[in-house]
Amino acid sequence: MKHLLFILYAITLFACGKKQNPAIVLQTDFGQKDGAVAAMKGIITGVNAQLRIHDLTHDIPAYNTWEAAYRLAQTAPYWPAGTVFVSVVDPGVGTQRKSLALKTKTGHYFISPDNGTLTLIAEQLGIAVVRSVDEATQRRPGSGGSYTFLGRDLYAYAAARLAAGKVEFVSLGPVLTIPMQTITYQKAVREHTVFKGNIPVLDVQYGNVWTDIPDTLLLNNGFRYGDTLTVQLKHKDSVVLVQRVPLCKTFGEVPEGKPLAYFNSLMNVSLALNMGNYAAVNHIKSGPDWSIVVGR
Amino acid sequence: MKHLLFILYAITLFACGKKQNPAIVLQTDFGQKDGAVAAMKGIITGVNAQLRIHDLTHDIPAYNTWEAAYRLAQTAPYWPAGTVFVSVVDPGVGTQRKSLALKTKTGHYFISPDNGTLTLIAEQLGIAVVRSVDEATQRRPGSGGSYTFLGRDLYAYAAARLAAGKVEFVSLGPVLTIPMQTITYQKAVREHTVFKGNIPVLDVQYGNVWTDIPDTLLLNNGFRYGDTLTVQLKHKDSVVLVQRVPLCKTFGEVPEGKPLAYFNSLMNVSLALNMGNYAAVNHIKSGPDWSIVVGR
Amino acid sequence: MKHLLFILYAITLFACGKKQNPAIVLQTDFGQKDGAVAAMKGIITGVNAQLRIHDLTHDIPAYNTWEAAYRLAQTAPYWPAGTVFVSVVDPGVGTQRKSLALKTKTGHYFISPDNGTLTLIAEQLGIAVVRSVDEATQRRPGSGGSYTFLGRDLYAYAAARLAAGKVEFVSLGPVLTIPMQTITYQKAVREHTVFKGNIPVLDVQYGNVWTDIPDTLLLNNGFRYGDTLTVQLKHKDSVVLVQRVPLCKTFGEVPEGKPLAYFNSLMNVSLALNMGNYAAVNHIKSGPDWSIVVGR
Repeated sequence: MKHLLFILYAITLFACGKKQNPAIVLQTDFGQKDGAVAAMKGIITGVNAQLRIHDLTHDIPAYNTWEAAYRLAQTAPYWPAGTVFVSVVDPGVGTQRKSLALKTKTGHYFISPDNGTLTLIAEQLGIAVVRSVDEATQRRPGSGGSYTFLGRDLYAYAAARLAAGKVEFVSLGPVLTIPMQTITYQKAVREHTVFKGNIPVLDVQYGNVWTDIPDTLLLNNGFRYGDTLTVQLKHKDSVVLVQRVPLCKTFGEVPEGKPLAYFNSLMNVSLALNMGNYAAVNHIKSGPDWSIVVGR
Repeated sequence: MKHLLFILYAITLFACGKKQNPAIVLQTDFGQKDGAVAAMKGIITGVNAQLRIHDLTHDIPAYNTWEAAYRLAQTAPYWPAGTVFVSVVDPGVGTQRKSLALKTKTGHYFISPDNGTLTLIAEQLGIAVVRSVDEATQRRPGSGGSYTFLGRDLYAYAAARLAAGKVEFVSLGPVLTIPMQTITYQKAVREHTVFKGNIPVLDVQYGNVWTDIPDTLLLNNGFRYGDTLTVQLKHKDSVVLVQRVPLCKTFGEVPEGKPLAYFNSLMNVSLALNMGNYAAVNHIKSGPDWSIVVGR
Repeated sequence: MKHLLFILYAITLFACGKKQNPAIVLQTDFGQKDGAVAAMKGIITGVNAQLRIHDLTHDIPAYNTWEAAYRLAQTAPYWPAGTVFVSVVDPGVGTQRKSLALKTKTGHYFISPDNGTLTLIAEQLGIAVVRSVDEATQRRPGSGGSYTFLGRDLYAYAAARLAAGKVEFVSLGPVLTIPMQTITYQKAVREHTVFKGNIPVLDVQYGNVWTDIPDTLLLNNGFRYGDTLTVQLKHKDSVVLVQRVPLCKTFGEVPEGKPLAYFNSLMNVSLALNMGNYAAVNHIKSGPDWSIVVGR
C-alpha cells in the first residue's frame, strides 16, 4: 500500500511539474503585413500548443544577411540558455545551400540557412556544434510540394520539435564537416594612436550611429568620460565627416541638437545628437563599406 | 482506503493535466501604433490569463475585406483545429450588419463581421455551421455605451470565452438562416489553351505577384518546369504587360533582375524578379480588377 | 497512513495549481526593426519562462511622453488588476530623473521613468502608492556597465520579478515623497454654451480626430444624437477649421466622404469622414497645442 502510494505520488508530481519548454524566437525579412509569420506560428502551435513564441524582428531588410547576423548578436545573449532562435533571411532559398542548426557553448540554439547569418553569434557565444538539418527527415510531413517556404515547412517545424523535446538536437542532422558560411567584416583594431572599426548598423529609431569598437579599447588606452574625441567617418575610401565630439555618459551632457560619443547598450562606441538624428543630419549609413577612425 | 486513494489521485491528475486551451489569432486593420489591439488582448487576458494570443496581421489596408479574406485563407490551414480566429476589418461598424461565428469542417473557428471576410476560408475549409453572434448575451458586461469598438467588446470577448471553454459554440447565437455575405471574384479557369485567373494579392515584402491559378492546372495540362510561359497581365480590360517567363523551381535559375514564374507557398502560379521587385518595376497591383492570362 | 496521504495530496495540489502570474505589457518608442524590445523580452523570460508578455505599442513617436501617457490611459483599464505595464519613453535617459513604480487604486502596476508618462493613468485609475525604483538593489546583476538601456536592465527586469512574485511591490524602492512629474494639458470644460477641450491624439490608422470631451458633457447639457454641432479646431490661437457636423451613432449615417461627430471607444467626442481621413483632408494634428470648441 505504502509503495503504491509513493509510486502514484511520484507519477503525479512528474506529470504536473513537467519542465518548462524553452522559448522560440523568430526573425525574418517577411514583414508582418501578410500571413507568412503567422503560418510559421501556426505550425509551431500545432507541434505543441504550450510553446512560447516571441518575435525578434520581421523587418530585416529583404535578403540582408548581415543585418540578420547583427540582430541575433544584439539580442540572443539576453535570452536564457536553451532558447531556440529561428532566422529566415534567405536570398538563396531553393538553391542547394544547407540549413544549419547551431548549438553555442552557452547552450543557445540557432536554426538558419547557411548564408552567414550565424557569423556574429558564433563568434560571440562560441560554437559547440553545427549540424546540417536533414530535410528528408526533419521537414513537416506533407509539405514536400512547396519549394519556396522552408521557413514554415522546415525551420519553424524543426525548431518547434526541438523546443518541445520531440526531437533531440543530435537527431536534426549530421555534424557539419566543412566550415559554415561567414560574412567578412572589419573588426575593431588599434593602429598606433587611433582605433579603426566598422559601422555595423544604425540605431534606426533614433538615428544613432553604432560602431563595433568596444568601450574597453578606449578605456584601456587612456580615454576617459569627458575627453574630446576626433571621429572620422568613411564610406569606402571617401571621408564623409570629421568631427570632434565629447565622450559622454548621458545625452543630456550636451545641448539639444549637439553631437556626442557614448557607449551603447552593447558597450560599443556610438555617435548621437542629443534629441536629434545623427545619421540623417550627417548622411551616414551602415554596412561593410562604412568605417570609422577614432582618435584624440 | 485504496478507493479513497484512487479517487484523490484521479482528482489530482485531472486538476493538473487540464486540457490546453486553443490559441486565439487576431487580424485587424487597426495597425499597432495605438492601443486598440492591446485593449483587445487585455479583455482576452481578463477572461482567462492562460490563453495564448497571436497576431495574424494588423496591417490589413483600412476597410479592405478582400485582403482580410485572403490573409485568413493563407494562414488558417497551418493552425491546429480548435484555433479561434478573430478578424475585425469592419467598414460597416455600427450598422445593422451581423456578427458571424463560423465553424469549419476542419474544426477551426472564425469570428468576423458579416461582410465577406469569411468568403475564402469557407470555400477552403468548408462550412460546418455559421452562427449569428448574439450581442444581447455575448457582449462584454458594461460595454453597452460604446458604439464603435465591437472588436474589443464583442469579438475579442466572445472569442476568449469560446477558447477558454466559458461558452459553447452553440450558445454564441442562432444558426444563420440566410447565406453569409461573400465577395465575388474570378476563379481560375482553363479556356481552350490558356488559363485565366485573378491577382488576389501581392507578396508585398518582395514585390512578387501572386495569382489564384493552382500548380495542378498547369501541370495536369502538359506544362513542366523549364517551360517558357506567356503571361498577359490586365487591369480591367487594359493589358498592362505581356511577357515570356521561364517556369522555375528556384529564383536562382535566372540571372539577378530577370523575371520568372514559380509556384508560391500556396502552390499557385506567381511571378517574380530574382532579387528584385516585379510588381514595382512593372506597375502591377492586385485586387478584383487585376487578372492574368497564362499560355504557351 | 491517512494523514500521510492527505499531506502528500495537499503538496501535490499546491505544486500543480500554482497561481497564474499576471501579464506584462510593454510600451516603448524603440520600434521593432532592431533587437531592443526582444532583448527586454529575453530578460523577462530569463526571470520566469512562464510569464506572458504582450506589446501595447513600440511605435510611440520618439521621446513623446504625452503620447505614451495617452496610450496607457487608452489601454490599461481593459486589462485585469495585477497586470504590470512597462513604459520606456525616456528623453531623460541617463540623467538624474527617477524611475517610478506606480500601483493604482485598481491594482494595476506601471513602471516608467518619472517624466509625465503616468499623468493620465494616475488621474484615471487613481494613485494607491508611487515608489522610486531603487537601482542599487533592483537592477539586473552584471548590468552596471551600461548607461543607456535601463529599459532592459532595470525596467523589464524589475517588472518580471514583480510579476513572477520574486520581489514584493514594497521592496522595489522607497515611497516617493515628492509629487511625480506630470504633463500640463487643457482638460475638457464647459464655458457658457460651448465646450472646450484638447485634441490629445489622432486615430492614426483612419485619420479620425479624437478629443478629450466626454460624451456625458454633451449629453447632460441637452445634446442628442442627430443634433448638428458647430466645431472650431484651433492650432494655438489660429482657427484652422470651422464646420457643422451631425452627431452620429454610426459612420454610415452620412454619405461616403462626409464629416460626422461621434463618440469614440473611450466615449469622447471625435470627428471623422465616413470612409475617409478627416485629419489629412483638413490638416489637423494633435498635441497640447491643438484644441477644439464645440457648440450649437
